Amino acid sequence: MVTLVLAHACRAPQHDVEVAAREAPAPQRSSRGEADPLPSWNDTTAKSSITRFVARVTQEGSPDYVSPADRIAVFDNDGTLWVEQPMYTQLAFAIDRVKQLAPEHPEWRTQQPFAAILAGDLEGVAASGQRGIVKLVAATHANITSDEFEQIVERWLATARHPTLHRPYTELVYLPMLELLAYLRANGFTTYIVSGGGVDFMRPWTERVYGVRRDQVIGSRIEMRYEARRGAPVLMRLPAASFVDDGAGKPVGIAQVIGRRPLIAVGNSDGDFEMLEWTTSGPGPRLGVLVHHTDAEREWAYDRTSRSGRLSRALHAAPGRGWVVIDMRQDWNRIFPPRASSATED
Amino acid sequence: MVTLVLAHACRAPQHDVEVAAREAPAPQRSSRGEADPLPSWNDTTAKSSITRFVARVTQEGSPDYVSPADRIAVFDNDGTLWVEQPMYTQLAFAIDRVKQLAPEHPEWRTQQPFAAILAGDLEGVAASGQRGIVKLVAATHANITSDEFEQIVERWLATARHPTLHRPYTELVYLPMLELLAYLRANGFTTYIVSGGGVDFMRPWTERVYGVRRDQVIGSRIEMRYEARRGAPVLMRLPAASFVDDGAGKPVGIAQVIGRRPLIAVGNSDGDFEMLEWTTSGPGPRLGVLVHHTDAEREWAYDRTSRSGRLSRALHAAPGRGWVVIDMRQDWNRIFPPRASSATED
Repeated sequence: MVTLVLAHACRAPQHDVEVAAREAPAPQRSSRGEADPLPSWNDTTAKSSITRFVARVTQEGSPDYVSPADRIAVFDNDGTLWVEQPMYTQLAFAIDRVKQLAPEHPEWRTQQPFAAILAGDLEGVAASGQRGIVKLVAATHANITSDEFEQIVERWLATARHPTLHRPYTELVYLPMLELLAYLRANGFTTYIVSGGGVDFMRPWTERVYGVRRDQVIGSRIEMRYEARRGAPVLMRLPAASFVDDGAGKPVGIAQVIGRRPLIAVGNSDGDFEMLEWTTSGPGPRLGVLVHHTDAEREWAYDRTSRSGRLSRALHAAPGRGWVVIDMRQDWNRIFPPRASSATED
Repeated sequence: MVTLVLAHACRAPQHDVEVAAREAPAPQRSSRGEADPLPSWNDTTAKSSITRFVARVTQEGSPDYVSPADRIAVFDNDGTLWVEQPMYTQLAFAIDRVKQLAPEHPEWRTQQPFAAILAGDLEGVAASGQRGIVKLVAATHANITSDEFEQIVERWLATARHPTLHRPYTELVYLPMLELLAYLRANGFTTYIVSGGGVDFMRPWTERVYGVRRDQVIGSRIEMRYEARRGAPVLMRLPAASFVDDGAGKPVGIAQVIGRRPLIAVGNSDGDFEMLEWTTSGPGPRLGVLVHHTDAEREWAYDRTSRSGRLSRALHAAPGRGWVVIDMRQDWNRIFPPRASSATED
């Protein structure tokens, strides 16, 4: 829970992703000569389970046909669409922001969780518990307007680099998932993000990076108050959570914003359990998908004991519930988009 | 505030609205031979202010051009898109539901607001105040699942009739507004409802009646809890408001769900003041529109002293802020769609 409102981030200049898209290998052709919409997926069960499901619900006249209005696909973000190791990107953002604001706050040198952050002591941050996180959110995400927060996120994303992969965070998205999002939209689905991370931390870049519109991003929310400042109305971000979109909160967030039960749910952690359960317990055909991080060489291998993206209960439940488990190492032939030329050296 | 969570409703069989659309008069042609997209609007300033604004922001190469992603139009519902007199439709729904459930609740004969409702004493309901409304919402909108509530709303809408106009509520929508919604969408706008009424009371019918998708409806929300019932997950509606989408709550609801400041806001009451203010104080071209109910003959004439849809502050502010005020009697040549054949006698 520590990371709920702190679960995200990152931005590359517009052309990075465009370059990535241009440099992606040409789609493979199937034996019937059709372009493969999922070229970064190996021809394993995970891929065929997804494409067979999509064919089944989109084939007119099929008994399982689903009208486009009900073709709702929901995706978790951290660990499902982009990297969540060694820490949630939104936590990295909060830490950087504390460091940036520290000169104005000499008292932070002795106050937790700030002292731990300034000392680079992540265990100390975790030890500060829920009270520490509330203080961290208040200091880094609140008491500013919604417009100011958006600018702060964008500026950070423009320069921040992942600590070990040394790339802008928005390049550390999973190419197979970009393909899956586009494939589903090409088949009449509406794709939503349903994340435990802060909705306002994601919206500045989801449209550009994932093709997911701002109003199709659901996440944790901070309280906001409409008020006048210097005669002009603003939306002030208050230091209190308004909604936590994680675990059993995800079906509630989906009901609040989408108002329909999804047809497809894709996640990677126990925080996605209820979203997959709610989706796949609906009537008619439904698809649940879990990303299992099994690739220590190209990305990370983690599940039951990970601090970010712990996956235990959902992985255990998957076979009995018919959820597709993506084995990242086996099922994906590429993980990330190619490096954008502007970011090759940094 | 009494009516916030109780502000809405109604449903006619699918074909009613289709019949209405077919029977609508053929679009008038302008002097240049183009079909008029707003034939129920007289050629007055209100109409030309709207069409000139739309031309200005959609003309490529114009200095005021706005990309489709930012063409967001928000509409209040009660009194803006459909009738709100003599009471909000959602209040009529709650009253009918109390009457239906009363045999199971003999204690209601002596408890307010139920006793007043059962006696047909609306003043008594109002006198029960906020505590009474909380009880009314709990009894009529909560302690059931989201699916059950939707079915209850749909069943009610199928048979309920307006007390004086004797038509299904979903036929008591303003034809000029149906035209405006369609006209804006044809010009690349996304149209949202932003209502003080309950979002789950609107979603069952907004797509069919207004062409507004379920995920483009924003309203007041009740708390929900994800839980298992007889082994299957459900979303239980709890007897507590989660969010009140009225007044200063409307810009917050817009920020939560849309995540963009609108380009156009349309309302009819002081509860829409902040939504219009937030919209029209944004940079660049913006349009605020108020419906003024001035037609006692064809609909109702009301503003400053009305219990439903009180309009005073916003009407006073309109000239100074450049908001377009629709004078219903002068500006609209038709109010409602033609009667559907199946509903002519009831």
